[in-house]
Amino acid sequence: MSEVLIVGSVAYDGLKTPYGSADRVLGGAATYSSLAASLFAPVKMVGVVGNDFKASDMAMLKRHGINTDLVTHEKGKTFYWKGYYENDMGVAHTVKIDLGVFERFDPEITGPSQRIPFVFLAAIHPDLQMKVLNQMIKPKFVVLDTRDLWINITKPALLKVLRKTDLVVVNDQEVRLLTGEMHLMKGARALQKMGPKTVIVKKGEHGAMLFGPGGTFLSPAVPLDYVVDPTGAGDTFAGAFIGYLARAGKVTPELLKQAVIMGNLVASFTVQGFGTKTIAALNRAKLQKRAADYHRFASIPQVKI
Amino acid sequence: MSEVLIVGSVAYDGLKTPYGSADRVLGGAATYSSLAASLFAPVKMVGVVGNDFKASDMAMLKRHGINTDLVTHEKGKTFYWKGYYENDMGVAHTVKIDLGVFERFDPEITGPSQRIPFVFLAAIHPDLQMKVLNQMIKPKFVVLDTRDLWINITKPALLKVLRKTDLVVVNDQEVRLLTGEMHLMKGARALQKMGPKTVIVKKGEHGAMLFGPGGTFLSPAVPLDYVVDPTGAGDTFAGAFIGYLARAGKVTPELLKQAVIMGNLVASFTVQGFGTKTIAALNRAKLQKRAADYHRFASIPQVKI
Repeated sequence: MSEVLIVGSVAYDGLKTPYGSADRVLGGAATYSSLAASLFAPVKMVGVVGNDFKASDMAMLKRHGINTDLVTHEKGKTFYWKGYYENDMGVAHTVKIDLGVFERFDPEITGPSQRIPFVFLAAIHPDLQMKVLNQMIKPKFVVLDTRDLWINITKPALLKVLRKTDLVVVNDQEVRLLTGEMHLMKGARALQKMGPKTVIVKKGEHGAMLFGPGGTFLSPAVPLDYVVDPTGAGDTFAGAFIGYLARAGKVTPELLKQAVIMGNLVASFTVQGFGTKTIAALNRAKLQKRAADYHRFASIPQVKI
Repeated sequence: MSEVLIVGSVAYDGLKTPYGSADRVLGGAATYSSLAASLFAPVKMVGVVGNDFKASDMAMLKRHGINTDLVTHEKGKTFYWKGYYENDMGVAHTVKIDLGVFERFDPEITGPSQRIPFVFLAAIHPDLQMKVLNQMIKPKFVVLDTRDLWINITKPALLKVLRKTDLVVVNDQEVRLLTGEMHLMKGARALQKMGPKTVIVKKGEHGAMLFGPGGTFLSPAVPLDYVVDPTGAGDTFAGAFIGYLARAGKVTPELLKQAVIMGNLVASFTVQGFGTKTIAALNRAKLQKRAADYHRFASIPQVKI
């Protein structure tokens, strides 16, 4: 069992979807992904919060076994994001962003934390991602997330980080922005030449596709009777993914496939409630039940030709 | 091994896609689906062609073991469709339709053909679909296809046929049009209450979903390096699907899953060439190779929780 270091935003979100709304719920990429990873392995979370950060939220993270020693408390407000989703819930529309203390986020990794083998860099400015990587000592496996914003405004910096990562998680639009390639599979292969040996393309309700040394693999999304709020699905996916690998302490083609499935399974809980509520309430029994359903749904029988 | 009766259009198509164009290539729903079904079981094809129908095309169909005794020759032109696809190739845009002899298509099923156990009704006017069904004697398994046009202009007639079918093949838009339900899974369940015990939702590049007595099942689409022309993919899918079941001579939850996979596998060849060319050239070796690749791509390993 290895530890996971997770760097990213900690936020309060104001959310509105066709199924309701919720304000100032705990969110942020580091929060979703740390909660997901903590189901499988010890997590060290790196982030920044303001004076308004609730003691009960910090206690909840710790109760999940998440080490928050590198979550700094700064004077000011915690990052606040307000957004809404239309009927198809494919795209988040931003109404308001208040960066607060996150504007001065400057992750310092010190001491034994520098030797944590599994690293997840959530979608923050690539210069900060690089700064974290430069502080780490021989990480075993580095997973990178990004977003269209960073591809559009800081592409050269992003390409530099990309060269230092083992795996990048992207959606199909990001593949196109990064590679200029319209065909998803060709784009993924182009990305593999830009640094990361393994590429995961998240396709939302259509699942996730893995392009790695072991070949191409698809894990369909979990079919859901209802979805309440898609916020954090991608971060949950990445957190569960790297947590699953860290628990094994190694990365093999077979474990990569299993980790993708686990990412889909855990993310399927996140979208069924507002904020981090359902992922924080997730337990082994619920996960086992969903995994069994999933295997009935997605297992491919042999055909006779 | 049972026989399959297939009723639908036989056409010459003028096609333009981002990857090229081809005029007056052999097409039509009955053609694609009969060629696909003939890989697995004897096929009796029901359709109409005009004076311009090439002897070489008829010979090709017969060479594939397709019985064309119920394909009538009428004075006039064979159904001609001209269309094009934009970059994403999701939607066919019609440029020209010349119904020709198809306008007077009036399928007559006589003699022993009335006892053929497996029946595929391609997307023609629901009154014609009903007429065929009324001529059949105790069919074992009836598969129905339709399209937005028939849902929009002849819904009552379509709903009547639907009650007499065992399985309907639809896309997500058709599910919404037929049931008014936006959520795909709820829509599929609503459809199951309208007649067919089993519903297949074709999701194009995202595969096909089966809702049946054995539960819900997804077969992802075959990942392809290139797609040339999507015309006929759905018909090929349905033809291979029913042909696979007819070869087994029975329908079980397990065979239904296998048949969906086979539909995807065979359809993946159709889209790699213009018209029926690639499906007509398909053989067992090519299919076996693709099935092996597919299983590597889509087989879901067990996860440890």
